[in-house]
Amino acid sequence: APLFTKDLYEGNDYIGVVTGLAWTSVGGEILFIETSLSKSKAPTLTLTGNLGNVMKESAILALEYIKAHATQLNIDESLFETMNVHVHVPEGAIPKDGPSAGITMVTAMTSAFTGHKVKKALAMTGEMTLRGKVLPVGGIKEKILAAKRANIKEVILCHENQKDIEEIKSSYLKGLKFHFVSDIREVLDIALIK
Amino acid sequence: APLFTKDLYEGNDYIGVVTGLAWTSVGGEILFIETSLSKSKAPTLTLTGNLGNVMKESAILALEYIKAHATQLNIDESLFETMNVHVHVPEGAIPKDGPSAGITMVTAMTSAFTGHKVKKALAMTGEMTLRGKVLPVGGIKEKILAAKRANIKEVILCHENQKDIEEIKSSYLKGLKFHFVSDIREVLDIALIK
Amino acid sequence: APLFTKDLYEGNDYIGVVTGLAWTSVGGEILFIETSLSKSKAPTLTLTGNLGNVMKESAILALEYIKAHATQLNIDESLFETMNVHVHVPEGAIPKDGPSAGITMVTAMTSAFTGHKVKKALAMTGEMTLRGKVLPVGGIKEKILAAKRANIKEVILCHENQKDIEEIKSSYLKGLKFHFVSDIREVLDIALIK
Amino acid sequence: APLFTKDLYEGNDYIGVVTGLAWTSVGGEILFIETSLSKSKAPTLTLTGNLGNVMKESAILALEYIKAHATQLNIDESLFETMNVHVHVPEGAIPKDGPSAGITMVTAMTSAFTGHKVKKALAMTGEMTLRGKVLPVGGIKEKILAAKRANIKEVILCHENQKDIEEIKSSYLKGLKFHFVSDIREVLDIALIK
Amino acid sequence: APLFTKDLYEGNDYIGVVTGLAWTSVGGEILFIETSLSKSKAPTLTLTGNLGNVMKESAILALEYIKAHATQLNIDESLFETMNVHVHVPEGAIPKDGPSAGITMVTAMTSAFTGHKVKKALAMTGEMTLRGKVLPVGGIKEKILAAKRANIKEVILCHENQKDIEEIKSSYLKGLKFHFVSDIREVLDIALIK
Amino acid sequence: APLFTKDLYEGNDYIGVVTGLAWTSVGGEILFIETSLSKSKAPTLTLTGNLGNVMKESAILALEYIKAHATQLNIDESLFETMNVHVHVPEGAIPKDGPSAGITMVTAMTSAFTGHKVKKALAMTGEMTLRGKVLPVGGIKEKILAAKRANIKEVILCHENQKDIEEIKSSYLKGLKFHFVSDIREVLDIALIK
Ligand SMILES: [Ca+2]
Ligand SMILES: [Ca+2]
Ligand SMILES: [Ca+2]
Ligand SMILES: [Ca+2]
Ligand SMILES: [Ca+2]
Ligand SMILES: [Ca+2]
Ligand SMILES: [Ca+2]
Ligand SMILES: [Ca+2]
Ligand SMILES: [Ca+2]
Ligand SMILES: [Ca+2]
Ligand SMILES: [Ca+2]
Ligand SMILES: [Ca+2]
Repeated sequence: APLFTKDLYEGNDYIGVVTGLAWTSVGGEILFIETSLSKSKAPTLTLTGNLGNVMKESAILALEYIKAHATQLNIDESLFETMNVHVHVPEGAIPKDGPSAGITMVTAMTSAFTGHKVKKALAMTGEMTLRGKVLPVGGIKEKILAAKRANIKEVILCHENQKDIEEIKSSYLKGLKFHFVSDIREVLDIALIK
Repeated sequence: APLFTKDLYEGNDYIGVVTGLAWTSVGGEILFIETSLSKSKAPTLTLTGNLGNVMKESAILALEYIKAHATQLNIDESLFETMNVHVHVPEGAIPKDGPSAGITMVTAMTSAFTGHKVKKALAMTGEMTLRGKVLPVGGIKEKILAAKRANIKEVILCHENQKDIEEIKSSYLKGLKFHFVSDIREVLDIALIK
Repeated sequence: APLFTKDLYEGNDYIGVVTGLAWTSVGGEILFIETSLSKSKAPTLTLTGNLGNVMKESAILALEYIKAHATQLNIDESLFETMNVHVHVPEGAIPKDGPSAGITMVTAMTSAFTGHKVKKALAMTGEMTLRGKVLPVGGIKEKILAAKRANIKEVILCHENQKDIEEIKSSYLKGLKFHFVSDIREVLDIALIK
Repeated sequence: APLFTKDLYEGNDYIGVVTGLAWTSVGGEILFIETSLSKSKAPTLTLTGNLGNVMKESAILALEYIKAHATQLNIDESLFETMNVHVHVPEGAIPKDGPSAGITMVTAMTSAFTGHKVKKALAMTGEMTLRGKVLPVGGIKEKILAAKRANIKEVILCHENQKDIEEIKSSYLKGLKFHFVSDIREVLDIALIK
Repeated sequence: APLFTKDLYEGNDYIGVVTGLAWTSVGGEILFIETSLSKSKAPTLTLTGNLGNVMKESAILALEYIKAHATQLNIDESLFETMNVHVHVPEGAIPKDGPSAGITMVTAMTSAFTGHKVKKALAMTGEMTLRGKVLPVGGIKEKILAAKRANIKEVILCHENQKDIEEIKSSYLKGLKFHFVSDIREVLDIALIK
Repeated sequence: APLFTKDLYEGNDYIGVVTGLAWTSVGGEILFIETSLSKSKAPTLTLTGNLGNVMKESAILALEYIKAHATQLNIDESLFETMNVHVHVPEGAIPKDGPSAGITMVTAMTSAFTGHKVKKALAMTGEMTLRGKVLPVGGIKEKILAAKRANIKEVILCHENQKDIEEIKSSYLKGLKFHFVSDIREVLDIALIK
């Protein structure tokens, strides 16, 4: 039974936790990307949550983007040499894969490194490239329905996914605000509370 | 024959040993999470007991949670740089997997790091996330029956598993006290004797 | 749907990003090789984008060529000991393999190490050997059609692929300028703006 | 032919060598756990003898137990940082697995680290847990017959295996003395000559 | 098409590049072993070109032979601690395996380490052992035909392959000079220009 | 053809090379264990020759035995920290496995470490255990016939293989001298010229 429960949005109390939208074999779902830092003399990136190779690559990519843009993101570079980064995606029993949690991972890690909280009732989905470009992803309709069910109020998507939103019956979209973006910097501007 | 013996609760003499509840192909079972520390110049996390990948991830997650919350848990951070952590789950002939030993692993490691013993006749089952949230798990009825058979008196479960307990005939629950929790700090407060 | 969108050329604003031509199961495609450097005490080559072993070897080969020819390429050798090199090929959901991105990878890495931008509206395809020789690759017709669709104006190919161009209807080639090369130094001379 | 020869007890001349009892596809067998220490600047645990994963875990577990209890076992802790530990189980052509050599491995390693010889004509079988508890194992009847054939005089077993001994015809047990134990410290007290 | 083009001999301009003879599913072929050195604080042997395990072992063996015979080969031993060795075999799309490139690899690496060029229009095929013995290999007829087609003038073979040459129609051998050798030192004497 | 040639004994000119006897799918064969040392700041054991896991373990075991008995074997222990050990078994195209080259490997490595040559026209076959015990191996008849064909004059075997020799027609054994041993020290005494 726990495998199929539909989760609810859980507030923005935790730094380093961001709500993503996933499209699984049982339909749309929200999922949480959790990031945590801990002191380490030999810092690495630790990934847990039954993640496939492409999803693991998204996390590697996210951390590399952050390292290469530390100054712009206002992150103290010495953290990369002193803190282990752990990214976890509950729930361990469910295999997860694909690139669509890319922007969620960058946002979660940036939140953890800067200490900035994430905006309330916000979810997001989108692939990121190494230069920070946001790419469109699939399963938009199912993800939006899941976001509503979970009490999400704002959603960040790639601008190339706007056409997918326009195909959804407008009554389903009531109470949801959309942000269509093309660069990860727009995502971080919208998502992080400074 | 040893593969199918039903184990009994074994007391709380050992620091670092916590009783979990498992749901295997032969029904409910209690299992022991054993943690041991040993001096090491290059400390790692060693995992034995024929564990699958998801269960190994639970142990990685547990250690990372403890490292990131060392101050709150009253753990001397220098231990992480001087002590190897070994987690073992007897019995080696039986493959074990899944996320439901998560809270048991955190409790066992925290017991080992703090030196606090674990409450008598207590068992637990539940997945933990990186921010310390406790998630519901399956097989509750079978696990509760196994707990009774093993002379367990108190059980810690996720509050979302309360509905599973309410579906069990009350005569089966006689003599068992339940703790329904949502955060790992509640688990540690109940389980560790200070 | 995102799996089959046809991409457009995206400008030359980013140092370290070069446009390649790929031949996939769904026809010709342009792809972007993105390279990024970040400070590291133990620099490695990080490869993401769902790459197969042969494509990963192309990146290893590219970096080795650059290291062995640092002086000729005007690259400060100390960078190899202080900067992590990350090569990413969007889009993560699509497996990619083969040696034909070889010259694109060398160009992208050299752009990142030297800080030189890449010529506007240029794409390329070709295998490279360790001594810098450019080898012919397959799927030329499909790649050229994809280049036109994507608004590419100049294409670099191995001189042994000239015969493949001569077999394409000339109306298809209108507006495209070709460079036929045999050594990677010609590629870098054409591609990098100094 | 060598694959099926029945071995004999071989004396207790060698420190670090202990006789175990195994249950293989061709019946009961005695086997030798050989341990050897050698100086090393980067000591590791080396395992040979065509061992499966569970049997390798038994050796890891054994070494960890010894490290965590070095003081009680009277072992100089500096040895762990200067000596490589090699555990070998002849005969390389035969795959071996399972947890039942656990107590034999602890005894062999403790003999090697302390320099104490092992009692004459003694064999043993049993799984060990990280806290030192001895668990019952299978194939007891076949193992006991093999022990007699091999001229063994004393056998150490888990107390939970006593019932298996009681089911064996007493004439088969003539000349054999049994030790039923529940903790590894009892095993070491019986087995090591001080 | 590129997969089946027949290559030509390409001159001896590059130090570290040696022409070998291969026998593939599409007949005899020449192939190039390319070696390159680059400064490194932690030198390793990097192998690319879609090589199977046996061919990778040939490269490991070649480097070990050279290290063990550095003085005789007039190689500065400090190079082994400061230079990364990269061996590449174009073309990446074609899997390659087998021990018959052994002597070609030693020659290519020795050329790179000494800076000596390789004799013009020379090709070779043969397995090498760790003590430098040259062993016979298969596919001699097909390899010789490929050598002629590629404008090769001299071929080095194991003396035990002389019988295979004697079975080839003499008109096919016109214009080819053979060297039959039994030790790698003979190969290097013939191949390297001092 | 090279796969099935029957090799001949090749003299004892090379330190570190010892002749073994193998039993393959095509009958008995002699094989050469070649050992070479080379200076290294981070010495390892390198194994080549298309060896299976059990045969690799024999080499690990051999080196560990030598390290643990360095004093008795008159080997300067500092060599273990300064010299890389490479063991190769020609011919790379043929997969090899099994424990029966154990005593041959110890002899080859000891020859390399001490600089002592190996006795002329001598071959051997037998498994070794970590304490130096020699175990019997299979295929004795086929191996002995191969030894004769290869001009071997003396053979070292485990004393438990004496019964296998007694079953061979005595005319086949003419000109062969046998040494039946039970400990590796006897092998080294017979094989190494001091
Ligand atoms: Ca869920
Ligand atoms: Ca996508
Ligand atoms: Ca049990
Ligand atoms: Ca679950
Ligand atoms: Ca695309
Ligand atoms: Ca090609
Ligand atoms: Ca046996
Ligand atoms: Ca068991
Ligand atoms: Ca070719
Ligand atoms: Ca061969
Ligand atoms: Ca042969
Ligand atoms: Ca054997």
